[in-house]
Amino acid sequence: MNETSMNIEFSLFGEKLRDHCGILELMDDLGKALTSNPDMRMMGGGNPAAIPEVQQIWRHRAADLLREGNDFDRMLVNYDPPAGNPRFLEAVADCLNRESGWNVQPENVAVTCGGQTAFFFLFNMLAGKFADGSHRKILLPIIPEYIGYANQGVSQELFTALPALIEEQDENTFKYRVDFENLEITDDIAAICVSRPTNPSGNVLSDSEIIRLSQLAKQNGIPLIIDNAYGNPFPGAIFTDATPIWDEHIILTLSLSKLGLPGTRTGIIIASEAITEAVSAMTAVVGLANNNIGQTLALPLLESGEIIRISNEIIRPFYKERAKHARKAAASAFGNSTPYRIHATEGAFFLWFWFPGLPISSAELYHRLKQRDVLVVSGEYFFFGLDEPWQHSKECLRVTFSQPPEIVRDGIRIIAEEVSRAYRE
Amino acid sequence: MNETSMNIEFSLFGEKLRDHCGILELMDDLGKALTSNPDMRMMGGGNPAAIPEVQQIWRHRAADLLREGNDFDRMLVNYDPPAGNPRFLEAVADCLNRESGWNVQPENVAVTCGGQTAFFFLFNMLAGKFADGSHRKILLPIIPEYIGYANQGVSQELFTALPALIEEQDENTFKYRVDFENLEITDDIAAICVSRPTNPSGNVLSDSEIIRLSQLAKQNGIPLIIDNAYGNPFPGAIFTDATPIWDEHIILTLSLSKLGLPGTRTGIIIASEAITEAVSAMTAVVGLANNNIGQTLALPLLESGEIIRISNEIIRPFYKERAKHARKAAASAFGNSTPYRIHATEGAFFLWFWFPGLPISSAELYHRLKQRDVLVVSGEYFFFGLDEPWQHSKECLRVTFSQPPEIVRDGIRIIAEEVSRAYRE
Repeated sequence: MNETSMNIEFSLFGEKLRDHCGILELMDDLGKALTSNPDMRMMGGGNPAAIPEVQQIWRHRAADLLREGNDFDRMLVNYDPPAGNPRFLEAVADCLNRESGWNVQPENVAVTCGGQTAFFFLFNMLAGKFADGSHRKILLPIIPEYIGYANQGVSQELFTALPALIEEQDENTFKYRVDFENLEITDDIAAICVSRPTNPSGNVLSDSEIIRLSQLAKQNGIPLIIDNAYGNPFPGAIFTDATPIWDEHIILTLSLSKLGLPGTRTGIIIASEAITEAVSAMTAVVGLANNNIGQTLALPLLESGEIIRISNEIIRPFYKERAKHARKAAASAFGNSTPYRIHATEGAFFLWFWFPGLPISSAELYHRLKQRDVLVVSGEYFFFGLDEPWQHSKECLRVTFSQPPEIVRDGIRIIAEEVSRAYRE
Repeated sequence: MNETSMNIEFSLFGEKLRDHCGILELMDDLGKALTSNPDMRMMGGGNPAAIPEVQQIWRHRAADLLREGNDFDRMLVNYDPPAGNPRFLEAVADCLNRESGWNVQPENVAVTCGGQTAFFFLFNMLAGKFADGSHRKILLPIIPEYIGYANQGVSQELFTALPALIEEQDENTFKYRVDFENLEITDDIAAICVSRPTNPSGNVLSDSEIIRLSQLAKQNGIPLIIDNAYGNPFPGAIFTDATPIWDEHIILTLSLSKLGLPGTRTGIIIASEAITEAVSAMTAVVGLANNNIGQTLALPLLESGEIIRISNEIIRPFYKERAKHARKAAASAFGNSTPYRIHATEGAFFLWFWFPGLPISSAELYHRLKQRDVLVVSGEYFFFGLDEPWQHSKECLRVTFSQPPEIVRDGIRIIAEEVSRAYRE
């Protein structure tokens, strides 16, 4: 290797996507700490917990595959069609129809290399520049919203967003609500998008809020995208009554990640055929095909409905217990001396802290915590697409509670110490 | 599901990527036939052969993973850093350095969800629109070139290409050469790109051709991208002496697909840190992380160097034999009655047929062959980025020979029948 170094010039697409962004920092932190710093308390990413019963299910399934004729070989040696394996698409449709009484056809299902990729395709195909010269955006009706969306636009700014209304539930608990009074669907809105449960806050939009958003979308002839990575009917990391909905104008995304398979990168889109066909074409162009492993592992569990049992009987109780434990740990660590609020924990894997009037930025708090081997995500990354600055966006922290209880307890104790120190500075 | 159907409007990005293109037709054909038409002779895609010795290696490796402590569980339940698993990056660098005497560092390595995705990232980050308002292109110095590149631009046309010079080697064999005399690197060229072995033609650019392209790139301060999906040091589907090269201004891509792992979607980029960092950022934004399975399966084989032995002692002889058999089958099926040419088969999995003066288009020939359960790829898709129409582009066919010999022989017999019929029409 010689030492000439070339001055690489990047295109606008290159500059935009490689820009240092929250999701890169998060994934880099997560992965590097996981592989090189065993002492780090991993409370940053959305990595699922290692649940022994669930891991055993996948281990047994892999062992079965190695025994059953050529199934293992076929999984590795063949390219699937870009939409996904036909048997898997059928199994997903049947499972959802049985469970929710829908009429989803295999043509309404498309697989992507993880949920994140589903959103990269959906946002950029529905919004951005149009042939008529117009520029349309994705409306996020309740912000904070998922960090991973923020930098996904291949051209200009993709999002326009509405700050959540804050409802104080008790001294230390608040809940975000959609500010319907200020929600306006203008001509430049290409689609509405929400995550449910919301990543980062753990909020679960109520059935009535979701129905109202769905009607608004339908009346305006635009899709409503619902990111169901943590939701029902699987993986089931949702602790309130929330009915899953789907309709021709709804684009519902699911994922196998929170069922313990993030390493397989398997996302699932349920949508009208126009959408699934476009997604499938993009998969071919961008990546030829999806990987087959997650689909092959999960297939019989979808066909038998076992995946619903796992969601209801293992995943949900597990995270509900972890959530309860984390909130107790917070109450005990913060006590009455340090002002703090946590969003109502209705689903997903996170405590969403709000420190009203925090004298340092959440970014600074993140760095101080990392120094002390506690990895969290600074809240500011979840506030994007807003017209005006919002002080609240600098006062929040996302803290994952999927790790073992003693780690979470220690981590929360250190957070309380650092926050308390910051208020005293 | 109600029957309202919404009229979805797609952005320019959406229109462009979902446009019916060669790679979508190919992957759709490949996947659908594979899963639903067992009689189809699969001579279309780049699917590797099911080589029993190789499949056994992966089966044993998976069985080992299920035995070894928590390795299997860790592979499924964790997100890797976006650049790839740190141990895998190190193993790739070490393996290449041992094998080729390079000085690649782990920071020069980035993993992507398959080689196709590597090119989507590389082309769009290096070419397209720039902040200064300019628009730059990827130069393909020898066309025909890989079908999968053609539609990957997120904005305008990404490619400018030079037709290959045709050298007739004997009555039925020809070889493409780079037309260096007409190769001009203008200011709007962002990078040069070649596949080696060339997909579709099976051409292998000679060491002197590659060195000349490398020097041209370096003199002009732009990268040379070499797509090594079939090449050396692995997977080794290359039948001539061809030295792999790498340098700071070279972007080399490799893949685990042709080692029997296409279902895992594992691509590898070797490049300067500026490039691998940008690729890693794009992986985070577009898909959070890569899937871990291919990396985990291949890790110890890279560490021990076994992957090189597999390439040299199993993969290369296997495809060399298949290539020889396919050419013999062609000679016997076409005889002297029907005019045909085949490109010198120096690597990869394809016979690249040229039928001079073919009275029907290659697209029409593709359809007739599909009717007869022979799936091939129409040659026209491999000619893109050209300034002027070229009759040669309508007279070619890519025929995969990785399937079992009796299928390939039957398929080639049917191709000869249909071509012969077309000439008589």
